[in-house]
Amino acid sequence: IETKLPKVGTTIFTVMSQLAAEHKAVNLGQGFPDFDGPPALREALARAMAEGRNQYAPMTGVPALREAIARKTERLYGCKVNADTEVTVTSGATEALFAAIAAIVRTGDEVIVLDPCYDSYEPAIELNGGRAVHVALDPSDFSPDWQRIADAVTPKTRMILVNSPHNPCGAVFDAADLDALAALARKHDLFVLSDEVYEHIVFDGALHQSVLRHKELAERSFVVSSFGKTYHCTGWKVGYCIAPRALSAEFRKVHQYLTFCTFTPAQWALAEAIETDPQHYLDLPAFYQAKRDRFRDLLAGSKFRLLPVGGAYFQVADYSALSQADDLAFCEWLVKEGGVAAIPISAFYENPPAGQRLVRFCFAKNDATLEQAAARLKAL
Amino acid sequence: IETKLPKVGTTIFTVMSQLAAEHKAVNLGQGFPDFDGPPALREALARAMAEGRNQYAPMTGVPALREAIARKTERLYGCKVNADTEVTVTSGATEALFAAIAAIVRTGDEVIVLDPCYDSYEPAIELNGGRAVHVALDPSDFSPDWQRIADAVTPKTRMILVNSPHNPCGAVFDAADLDALAALARKHDLFVLSDEVYEHIVFDGALHQSVLRHKELAERSFVVSSFGKTYHCTGWKVGYCIAPRALSAEFRKVHQYLTFCTFTPAQWALAEAIETDPQHYLDLPAFYQAKRDRFRDLLAGSKFRLLPVGGAYFQVADYSALSQADDLAFCEWLVKEGGVAAIPISAFYENPPAGQRLVRFCFAKNDATLEQAAARLKAL
Ligand SMILES: CSCCC(=O)C(=O)O
Ligand SMILES: CSCCC(=O)C(=O)O
Repeated sequence: IETKLPKVGTTIFTVMSQLAAEHKAVNLGQGFPDFDGPPALREALARAMAEGRNQYAPMTGVPALREAIARKTERLYGCKVNADTEVTVTSGATEALFAAIAAIVRTGDEVIVLDPCYDSYEPAIELNGGRAVHVALDPSDFSPDWQRIADAVTPKTRMILVNSPHNPCGAVFDAADLDALAALARKHDLFVLSDEVYEHIVFDGALHQSVLRHKELAERSFVVSSFGKTYHCTGWKVGYCIAPRALSAEFRKVHQYLTFCTFTPAQWALAEAIETDPQHYLDLPAFYQAKRDRFRDLLAGSKFRLLPVGGAYFQVADYSALSQADDLAFCEWLVKEGGVAAIPISAFYENPPAGQRLVRFCFAKNDATLEQAAARLKAL
Repeated sequence: IETKLPKVGTTIFTVMSQLAAEHKAVNLGQGFPDFDGPPALREALARAMAEGRNQYAPMTGVPALREAIARKTERLYGCKVNADTEVTVTSGATEALFAAIAAIVRTGDEVIVLDPCYDSYEPAIELNGGRAVHVALDPSDFSPDWQRIADAVTPKTRMILVNSPHNPCGAVFDAADLDALAALARKHDLFVLSDEVYEHIVFDGALHQSVLRHKELAERSFVVSSFGKTYHCTGWKVGYCIAPRALSAEFRKVHQYLTFCTFTPAQWALAEAIETDPQHYLDLPAFYQAKRDRFRDLLAGSKFRLLPVGGAYFQVADYSALSQADDLAFCEWLVKEGGVAAIPISAFYENPPAGQRLVRFCFAKNDATLEQAAARLKAL
């Protein structure tokens, strides 16, 4: 059978997690914590099940959750969103990204993505008949070069996909980035798809520059987030999309036939958590900043050069002092010989910059895990 | 914004459930039970959460669940499936249907669907650049007319979508249908997508004629099922697809970027339930047959003519003695004036047969619910 996705193999996260398991390596590859979220959240979920909330949620999501999302969004980003018509709950951010792309991208449309970028973007664009146009972020600090991005716009450009805090690189937008993005989108009448799943993990006192802070930009944007990262439950698969009413209507036409809804009891539990314990996500930057700093301290004196991390829970490291192998070959060696799994940054590029030698470590781990990994990495 | 899905509005299930809630009608529309599954299942889920199974499941599904599915499939249908390479767990059957279609259907391909058919099939085909070719089931008993189906095949036909037990009509395939389907698929080299979510709800001692019973057919088929119907938890959204290795590989390429995985703790809980309590699903035919018979008895003497029900949990009824309104208008009237929500059968047709007057009632309800609904329906 001829494949519709000739460029696609098994996602790098699956490949590296399997390799990590085989070699009993410390897994700092795939992005997930090795600890759980608040016990109250699991208790609320068990209660929802006991109360019989086990049937289909509304296709748009449980109303209490949509309302909690709308209130949180207004509190944090000063953006009024209508819970009924502008918020849709999905099976994780992955589904929301796919649904937004499927709702907007037509045969022959181009979508600008900024490399390195998350590996689901391009296959989703291609499956919907579009073409991903890759523009590299500045290799020194992974900031967007808005002039280069503007140069990539053609009459076929339909949408631009942005991601801050950035996975895999940990870069974050500043307010000027939002202005530049808004100007570009206005000039060329583009839709914006903004992947903000790490919205609550921004460091050093910076604010998360959500596209929703920018009124004009919000009017042409799909903003995607999820609860997996915020509540340390990546396996719960509750995400959402915020978009203006007309865009949400198109989004929902797709979503209702993609998954229809996601696990109902978790929706009730998350609605309760967001409303009763906002401190949880307000404390998250400090929580992960401590992990970032601890991991960086532990690696001091290693052969890795650590790049700055403004947000998300990944540390990018330059390994060129250790090896000149390419990123994937180095990661394979690292998991087998070094006992630590990482993710090759080259996997997120259409064309990795020549000579760039970078891997990503996930630091959403208990201290003991970080210590064990760091000891192995320092011994190299 | 111009829509990519001009034929699509909000799914009829959402429309009718909302109307039912507004008018405080007894909701026999959208298909879900008003009772819960085995308590042990919820306990197992709570235990999985407590044991820290809250992070991403493997993209293909939790191994214990895939193995339980493979063993059950072999026990019931005599079909050996490889849990590693041929079973993929999804976010409900809806995702599995979409992923199979996205994996196979290319621009311009035709997919044969048998009307009346579930409302997600055609939009999924269209979003993937294909065209749904509708062939009506025999209006007398909703059996497939294999000659008419063969006549609809063209050089562009890529796949045929079948569904037994049938939603909305409750018809079931017999062994001869599998043979006819196999002959057709072989002759024209078609893929088969078989929606078998009601596999455990077949009445009157009949066997479920899974496509997996037919070795040759299984080699070119995606078989989709889920646990929502079997375990009375339609909101849990754990489905799966069984397909030969090469087809599963293509399916997984799509699935990994559509949702990646579904709610992890439910996967562990279901794996345990399937293995430790097979009696649950073996008892299901008798459980739902009793509900079917009860509902039919309750409606004796009403103006509805009840069609036979061979499987699934829906009763189709002819209301022509009551009204000559079309199915949707009748359902709107019924929910507002009659206090009972149903689903118009015409919603599942490209071209509803002229003069056909049918609605679908879901009988997956407590006796009290069925009694209340029947009392209202008899009063019309
Ligand atoms: C869905 S598996 C990938 C998890 C993740 O977001 C990452 O590791 O970047
Ligand atoms: C996903 S909502 C529709 C539920 C269902 O399968 C039905 O009512 O037919």
